[in-house]
Amino acid sequence: MNTRVGRRTVELGRRPVIISSAAVVGAKEGEGPLAKDFDMIVSDDKMGQKSWDLAEGAFQKTAVELALKKAGVTAAETDCVLAGDLQNQCVAANYGLRDSSIPFYGLYGACSTMIESLSLGALLVSGGAFGRVMCSTSSHFCSAEKQFRNPLEYGGQRAPAAQWTVTGSGAALLAESGTGPVITHVTPGKIVDKGVNDMNNMGAAMAPAALDTIIAHLEDTNTVPSDYDLILTGDLGIVGSDILCDLSAGSGYDISSVHNDCGKMIYNIKEQDVHAGASGCGCCASVFCGYVMRRLNKGLYKKILVIATGALMNPTTIQQGESIPSIAHAVSITAR
Amino acid sequence: MNTRVGRRTVELGRRPVIISSAAVVGAKEGEGPLAKDFDMIVSDDKMGQKSWDLAEGAFQKTAVELALKKAGVTAAETDCVLAGDLQNQCVAANYGLRDSSIPFYGLYGACSTMIESLSLGALLVSGGAFGRVMCSTSSHFCSAEKQFRNPLEYGGQRAPAAQWTVTGSGAALLAESGTGPVITHVTPGKIVDKGVNDMNNMGAAMAPAALDTIIAHLEDTNTVPSDYDLILTGDLGIVGSDILCDLSAGSGYDISSVHNDCGKMIYNIKEQDVHAGASGCGCCASVFCGYVMRRLNKGLYKKILVIATGALMNPTTIQQGESIPSIAHAVSITAR
Repeated sequence: MNTRVGRRTVELGRRPVIISSAAVVGAKEGEGPLAKDFDMIVSDDKMGQKSWDLAEGAFQKTAVELALKKAGVTAAETDCVLAGDLQNQCVAANYGLRDSSIPFYGLYGACSTMIESLSLGALLVSGGAFGRVMCSTSSHFCSAEKQFRNPLEYGGQRAPAAQWTVTGSGAALLAESGTGPVITHVTPGKIVDKGVNDMNNMGAAMAPAALDTIIAHLEDTNTVPSDYDLILTGDLGIVGSDILCDLSAGSGYDISSVHNDCGKMIYNIKEQDVHAGASGCGCCASVFCGYVMRRLNKGLYKKILVIATGALMNPTTIQQGESIPSIAHAVSITAR
Repeated sequence: MNTRVGRRTVELGRRPVIISSAAVVGAKEGEGPLAKDFDMIVSDDKMGQKSWDLAEGAFQKTAVELALKKAGVTAAETDCVLAGDLQNQCVAANYGLRDSSIPFYGLYGACSTMIESLSLGALLVSGGAFGRVMCSTSSHFCSAEKQFRNPLEYGGQRAPAAQWTVTGSGAALLAESGTGPVITHVTPGKIVDKGVNDMNNMGAAMAPAALDTIIAHLEDTNTVPSDYDLILTGDLGIVGSDILCDLSAGSGYDISSVHNDCGKMIYNIKEQDVHAGASGCGCCASVFCGYVMRRLNKGLYKKILVIATGALMNPTTIQQGESIPSIAHAVSITAR
């Protein structure tokens, strides 16, 4: 039975197992320091499709199929998929998975979607609703750039605090039983908006949401940062990570000795000229499903906390002068 | 304990109770035949906001607050909200609920979002993850029209099969116990795409998805249409409802004697000049949370099946020549 602990954390009674995962990324991500940890590096960022929109869907479809293959599970044996992405109306997931025939629940949590998906998937498996749940997200530099910022051909100067949207997807398959790390706790995020309205500084907008969820999780589970081998945030990048570590020290929960951020890990930041690091649903998804899962499976991490952050505005609300509401969802995971 | 029955339906062990609901709609909806069944009719469709985008969020915020008030439950006593809408990056839910302080999971299922929300909410409550879950969605004629079709000022001629987006929101509060109807079964939708690519005929695109889910639900639960007092689809409108009834008769599960559609119910279709009826997340949400919940609470319906349909394209994919992937999520509900 699941148990609510503290203010907002759920301790999972029957711990869902992450029985497989797959990370599929583009060429630029394949030139970064995590190249060996991805399942597939695709040299054609268009994936043979006629548009960037559909190309992103093809990344997600490939990640889902690969995660199934690695687990030896068919689509028909998968009870549902929880999927989303950054495109308007989440069309990467919708079109990418339309032929999968897996029952489909669409999510939108911006760059928090991978952990939103793992959170809800874990709760559904633990509650006995489903035996196997696929969790997947994606992002694509080209589909995101043209939608959120400028036409690709424009070649605008990027701001120092801007982050580079990852081209890639990650998929993780949860099951009632099997071999792999288990999800032990889920802490849902609350929307936090501290008034930041700079679309070129998402890290600053999202850091307070990450802090809010991390503190809730630590207090609810009666743990401290040093109980974890890694406290991994989704994609705050360099600027947001610095803010989060400063805020955490000031709050009495200094995470800096165990903290890392997917947005700081996937690229050689200076050499690859990505300014403040990486972002996008595909950032946390590919780093978690590739790099982190490999280390959990090898026992290099025993207990970790993963918090993905999302910025919940759209370009219209920013043009209207609104600030950026943000959210962060957390799961804690134990290797076995 | 939850039990999977048949191919893809979950029978809920501890049946979640819909302890309250609220429907808040705009002026045009308040002039329709269901006016008496809404909790609030707002004469200012802008809700005192400076943009249509924020106005839609204000509808959703009002519906959530009203549903809490009717149940005598505070936001702090609500474990999470599952919310979404049609706007790019779901900003109506994100901004409307940013001050609510309720842990937040964002969903995107287009016009299927209300039942996607009730489905996941029911599974989470039944699985013991959360004690109280708020489910809410909204749509707004003006935010949808400018985003999906034409600038409001353009005044373009509407196609005969076009549906009018409802301005309104519905919110329903699920709990482990209490007074109200209970959700007994959940059947998740699969993405179905039969090749329709006419953005002005969503009903035709979505009807096959509704049929797929209805047949799965009936077969999984070993029931027939006449076992239900009402089989209610989300918003197929006149054209899509006719197609669904024809398809259902041809499939051996003729639902026509117990079928109705939220898109046919909310307006006086001819007098209010809405062509093929209504659509939008707020259509199913306000009709279900207003009209249907009142009749369940009075015992006028004993057992119903509600299936909300969603069209999962965006304007860009349609301009690129793609067809419209669709989905339909179902819950069955029993009065007590």
